[in-house]
Amino acid sequence: RTSSRCSFLPNSSLQFGAGARKLHAEGNGPKSSPAAAPDRLPFSRVTQEDLAFFKKILPGRTITDPDLLESSNVDWLKSVKGSSEVMLRPQTTEDVSQILSYCNSRNLAVNPQGGNTGLTGGSVPVYDEIILSTALMNKILAFDSISGILTCQAGCVLENLSLYLEKRDHIMPLDLGAKGSCQIGGNVATNAGGLRLLRYGSLHGTVLGLEVVLADGRVLDCLTTLRKDNTGYDLKQLFIGSEGTLGVITAVSILCPRRPTSVNVVFLGCETFEQLLKTFQLCRGMLGEILSAFEFLDSECMRLLNTHLRLPNPISDCPFYVVIETSGSDPSHDGEKLHNFLEEAMACSLVNDGTVATEETKIKALWSMRERVTEALTHDGFTYKYDISLPVERIYQLVTDMRERLGDRAKSVVGYGHIGDGNLHLNITSPAKDPALLAAIEPFVYEWTASCQGSISAEHGLGLKKRNYIYYSYAGPQRHSQPIQDITR
Amino acid sequence: RTSSRCSFLPNSSLQFGAGARKLHAEGNGPKSSPAAAPDRLPFSRVTQEDLAFFKKILPGRTITDPDLLESSNVDWLKSVKGSSEVMLRPQTTEDVSQILSYCNSRNLAVNPQGGNTGLTGGSVPVYDEIILSTALMNKILAFDSISGILTCQAGCVLENLSLYLEKRDHIMPLDLGAKGSCQIGGNVATNAGGLRLLRYGSLHGTVLGLEVVLADGRVLDCLTTLRKDNTGYDLKQLFIGSEGTLGVITAVSILCPRRPTSVNVVFLGCETFEQLLKTFQLCRGMLGEILSAFEFLDSECMRLLNTHLRLPNPISDCPFYVVIETSGSDPSHDGEKLHNFLEEAMACSLVNDGTVATEETKIKALWSMRERVTEALTHDGFTYKYDISLPVERIYQLVTDMRERLGDRAKSVVGYGHIGDGNLHLNITSPAKDPALLAAIEPFVYEWTASCQGSISAEHGLGLKKRNYIYYSYAGPQRHSQPIQDITR
Repeated sequence: RTSSRCSFLPNSSLQFGAGARKLHAEGNGPKSSPAAAPDRLPFSRVTQEDLAFFKKILPGRTITDPDLLESSNVDWLKSVKGSSEVMLRPQTTEDVSQILSYCNSRNLAVNPQGGNTGLTGGSVPVYDEIILSTALMNKILAFDSISGILTCQAGCVLENLSLYLEKRDHIMPLDLGAKGSCQIGGNVATNAGGLRLLRYGSLHGTVLGLEVVLADGRVLDCLTTLRKDNTGYDLKQLFIGSEGTLGVITAVSILCPRRPTSVNVVFLGCETFEQLLKTFQLCRGMLGEILSAFEFLDSECMRLLNTHLRLPNPISDCPFYVVIETSGSDPSHDGEKLHNFLEEAMACSLVNDGTVATEETKIKALWSMRERVTEALTHDGFTYKYDISLPVERIYQLVTDMRERLGDRAKSVVGYGHIGDGNLHLNITSPAKDPALLAAIEPFVYEWTASCQGSISAEHGLGLKKRNYIYYSYAGPQRHSQPIQDITR
Repeated sequence: RTSSRCSFLPNSSLQFGAGARKLHAEGNGPKSSPAAAPDRLPFSRVTQEDLAFFKKILPGRTITDPDLLESSNVDWLKSVKGSSEVMLRPQTTEDVSQILSYCNSRNLAVNPQGGNTGLTGGSVPVYDEIILSTALMNKILAFDSISGILTCQAGCVLENLSLYLEKRDHIMPLDLGAKGSCQIGGNVATNAGGLRLLRYGSLHGTVLGLEVVLADGRVLDCLTTLRKDNTGYDLKQLFIGSEGTLGVITAVSILCPRRPTSVNVVFLGCETFEQLLKTFQLCRGMLGEILSAFEFLDSECMRLLNTHLRLPNPISDCPFYVVIETSGSDPSHDGEKLHNFLEEAMACSLVNDGTVATEETKIKALWSMRERVTEALTHDGFTYKYDISLPVERIYQLVTDMRERLGDRAKSVVGYGHIGDGNLHLNITSPAKDPALLAAIEPFVYEWTASCQGSISAEHGLGLKKRNYIYYSYAGPQRHSQPIQDITR
């Protein structure tokens, strides 16, 4: 099951034995920056005896057919390709434990894989690692409608969880473009952000418990379902965003909000980025507790949506577009708040044009203008993708600077993302892979980000592609030697 | 500066060199359960040379006057007492680094101390540990009104931060009874919960960055101010709730919500705990996004408030009382939602009686019925305090079972706490310390909690008093061998 909406990431990934990632160097498949790829470490090769063991413990769930393996060896962007010859499909934690215990004793490399929707090359093998797919670990284990706490296996697809919860008057605290394929275990392993973070916070707050199998097969049971538990170190936190390097997440308990009974989406156009920021500020004040998303895209994104996906602009042409979502419990109250906000935004000339949706089909249509930008980009050419956290005031300056720097060398330079979270998705396309272009982009983009104390990986993770650039996020720690106020005086 | 509202915890604490905590065995001071106290480990004693060093690097901020040390050697409950002979009051991270580096090389034990408002004996020395007070580290380092991100030193008092933010249209994401004394560093070190957790989530979600000095004086700089950062392991999470055992928190960056322009508080009475739970469910649905607290106390708490603090019951006598707070951006909308909810709750006979406050003085008066229970308890006698997380349906059963078990042996057995978080504060008083009573309470209370997969320390931390009981929270991991639904079918 694959969604057409794939703006974001999530996937569990990485092989045990750090540093063992590298692109498959031969063949005609897609390749990534060679600089990102480490050498293959001296792991064992899978033997017939190994296969016999796997087939015994996972009958019918030990996949060796190359045709069936093909799609699990290549990432969604088709930018990175591995050459694994076996995929294991455990159904239980005990299965995973047996697999890892065996692989550890045999010194076999393992690549955990969720929905394989990641954007940084972290979800597929680099060489011949065994793929450990969580796809069959898709059972809901418990749901408590009083507390809103859901417990499920790691392989549950995000959208399936959403549908399950909606029938029970709740929603998942996260929502991603890749929801139709991505799995909750991968979401947690990569600390996926997405569209609802502004309202419901990060997975570090909403994930209450995890069950993890460590590399040697031991099961770490932190699968608590309590909102508060201060007995000892909160070890599960380390696995959130560790991209599979510390263990395989097998089950998750997560706090789910009540389903809002009223949802509205507004699509607005702004003349400048400064006006867009002012709109955000006004919005935070006037929409307050019902604001659930504040997203943006630039006119270049709109051009790609028009050109490649035939999605017409729902409003008049503007340099910047905003998608605002409200979620609340009273349609008339929400409508009134929205109306007042829009009137004020128009009166202050913060926005040029806009349209409002309260009906589901139109809501989806407006959301697709934001969620399908990634898809539109894949039709524009080879895409260099950057996922940057910055102080919100600086977000668009990076796009402008990059556009100026690259000039004609790039086909498109586009910016979109999550204003509410200070998270920019900067994407640059060219007709084909272009090392000279890449050299003009990197390390410039990382240096620029580091100079603003930003992060070079906001929500997509490091994966294979950014593994060598992690230090840019730690190069220049922010120093506050001058207090701005002494509150004791 | 001490607040009269002290229902909760927070304090940074613990000495380096695990296992080195124990009650001061001699003297006339207060004592805790001897079972909780470890032996003094072979740390060095403070010498005149050590004092000379401290006086050199902290002139005027090296305290050795016994009168000045007195209040820092005893906890707020006066239940645990140490015998430290020196308190250091650093102002900067560099000061803390120098202190810890020196103490590490000299093998001197250190007890970090924030506001000393903790309830589990974790904030004071056990023997002669050096007290490292963060009280002078009280500077605000930065506040970004666009993102709502505050960065400050660890010793800032929570209420001072709240006042600072309120002037800038924001609030702290946490609120505690001890706000007038507790410090943000201690709040983070103990992962304080409090009254707003239901709405704004835990510190694992709202704390964006930490600066920590490790035991050997090295500074760990995770003081990022980004909402999203997925570059590497989120190490700062380990320090949240570690109660000072891994390092001294010196600075915090935290995401602050906008200040609500409309706040209402309702005080309701329910006939049974089941009706109280139904009221909570109704409330979650009808108040939705404006619900910011749902707290309860039983009639025994009310009796103590009446008797010891002369606080009159604002409504008619009921077995259970509820404090509901709403926070929103539109007074008329919030008023209407509240009105509809109350009408429905009355119509369904969920509540017997109630009163609403929208004006600040009355709001504070209603809140004090909940926040001053801890204070009332201190007047009732020696108090055995338990801070338990349980599935919300089971919360009050523990109080009932305990009351039945103890019969006349206890003076009062009261229950109150945070329904929205599944967090019960169970308190038992007796005229004086009573080992026989304690033996009837423990380990019964821990076994009862473990049998429900609860936590024996929801938000207060382990401190000294519960350090030997941590295993009860890990004794019986919840197993979900039978999936409740296969969502692929």
